[in-house]
Amino acid sequence: MAQFRNPDAVARLRADFERQGAMSSMGITLADIAPGQVTLQMPFNPAFTQHHGYMHAGIITTAMDSACGFAAFTLMEAEAEVLTVEFKSNFMSPAAGEAFRFEGEVVKSGRTLTFTQGRAVAISEGAEKTFATMTATMMAVRGMRG
Amino acid sequence: MAQFRNPDAVARLRADFERQGAMSSMGITLADIAPGQVTLQMPFNPAFTQHHGYMHAGIITTAMDSACGFAAFTLMEAEAEVLTVEFKSNFMSPAAGEAFRFEGEVVKSGRTLTFTQGRAVAISEGAEKTFATMTATMMAVRGMRG
Amino acid sequence: MAQFRNPDAVARLRADFERQGAMSSMGITLADIAPGQVTLQMPFNPAFTQHHGYMHAGIITTAMDSACGFAAFTLMEAEAEVLTVEFKSNFMSPAAGEAFRFEGEVVKSGRTLTFTQGRAVAISEGAEKTFATMTATMMAVRGMRG
Amino acid sequence: MAQFRNPDAVARLRADFERQGAMSSMGITLADIAPGQVTLQMPFNPAFTQHHGYMHAGIITTAMDSACGFAAFTLMEAEAEVLTVEFKSNFMSPAAGEAFRFEGEVVKSGRTLTFTQGRAVAISEGAEKTFATMTATMMAVRGMRG
Repeated sequence: MAQFRNPDAVARLRADFERQGAMSSMGITLADIAPGQVTLQMPFNPAFTQHHGYMHAGIITTAMDSACGFAAFTLMEAEAEVLTVEFKSNFMSPAAGEAFRFEGEVVKSGRTLTFTQGRAVAISEGAEKTFATMTATMMAVRGMRG
Repeated sequence: MAQFRNPDAVARLRADFERQGAMSSMGITLADIAPGQVTLQMPFNPAFTQHHGYMHAGIITTAMDSACGFAAFTLMEAEAEVLTVEFKSNFMSPAAGEAFRFEGEVVKSGRTLTFTQGRAVAISEGAEKTFATMTATMMAVRGMRG
Repeated sequence: MAQFRNPDAVARLRADFERQGAMSSMGITLADIAPGQVTLQMPFNPAFTQHHGYMHAGIITTAMDSACGFAAFTLMEAEAEVLTVEFKSNFMSPAAGEAFRFEGEVVKSGRTLTFTQGRAVAISEGAEKTFATMTATMMAVRGMRG
Repeated sequence: MAQFRNPDAVARLRADFERQGAMSSMGITLADIAPGQVTLQMPFNPAFTQHHGYMHAGIITTAMDSACGFAAFTLMEAEAEVLTVEFKSNFMSPAAGEAFRFEGEVVKSGRTLTFTQGRAVAISEGAEKTFATMTATMMAVRGMRG
């Protein structure tokens, strides 16, 4: 199985997560961290809906992107930062539910590029449904940390 | 040139935009509406940054998705609602700037599917720079409006 | 599990596959058909390489697209034809191997749109390696068959 | 405007193009080379159709990918090779026509990654129609050339 390449990976990931204004503003929290896999969660939030009352597709994407980016980060070296190169999201049904879970995982980790995939799961009255998926390319950038 | 297919398109678009919790929560406003083209704008907002202090890639995507979705909506019939099927975003450089403009435009409008493209422009000390692009597929859904 | 919606699905799929000039020209053949899942195969073919001697990324994509499209077709109604709306391919490593397998599967099947995913596996000295993935949106079109 | 970074760029591109088995097998030829822009062309070819008689979406993608990859190559340094990281293709209408033109252009050129976009134009009785588009991420790889 995959292993952390940086012994401080979990602590650094938690610190970086705390510094993401976007996560706290939207009520997204860390649910699980493992080598190559990060899970986030979020309750339904009427402040981030589109005009039919579902969660906005872009907000769902924001959470999947963060899950994928942090998953990539868990397998990077100590001096690397992660930036999103590109992603594609598919929306199979509207984002309806009481709460949401966002899973990001590394498909292939390279020195410069990491390929990841993510999915968004809606939880409603105990039932779970995957309603959106993502594939994302992440890039390791060195020399950003002051 | 493209024309509105619904005489109430602009009024309905403004009303739908107002009902998007996500737009007001993030400080995104309508800048321009034309047949097949919608432009949104947003000041830099520290509440929606990632951990390096740039605007979160997902937030930029949220704005581009809205610009593209509303652009598609301008060419749809009166009874149609628009839902995002999928999009892909490319990030050419980090989202740094004092303000941002998001342009969505229709590439091809069909009865069921509309192909759109979007771009995000950063404005900094009067200079403009396109730093992200999107291609998005939008779907017309009928029978949603009560 | 998924089921064929058309009792003639397998026979029609085989007939449509035979009519694809692209498949026979490239030496791609059907390996397996199940409801919502189609597998194709291809030997290494120097006639379809790029300039480093690997199989061309577009040829790999052609095979993944066909696997995904036919997978979508297995769950469609008798009168429907399938057209590709869009796809995204990721290439994790070059297409090197003696033979290749292409798996397409339905993630969500709808009346109009079907979401699929695919992957390309290289086979080399008995070892298998997934080197490319796809997500594709397929559309059911009615009234095309004469 | 963009400039070639390698004085031998055009000669090397032509040599690399000649070595692409896929291009000659499919009848795709070079139409134009400029810094950051490459155009390919192809007559309708029944050997590469799908089962409705249109050109296969994957073949159209193969040509757009080559146009984008070579466009990226024109702005790379002498020692760099180009590999496709990922691309997304949208198909707005079926690939019907007597001949096709494929345009690839660089949107942003970086040391490691180059963002490109492409489009496919069908030519039929003198009329032109853009029927497919691509966005592609290309990577410069050093040390591949023997």
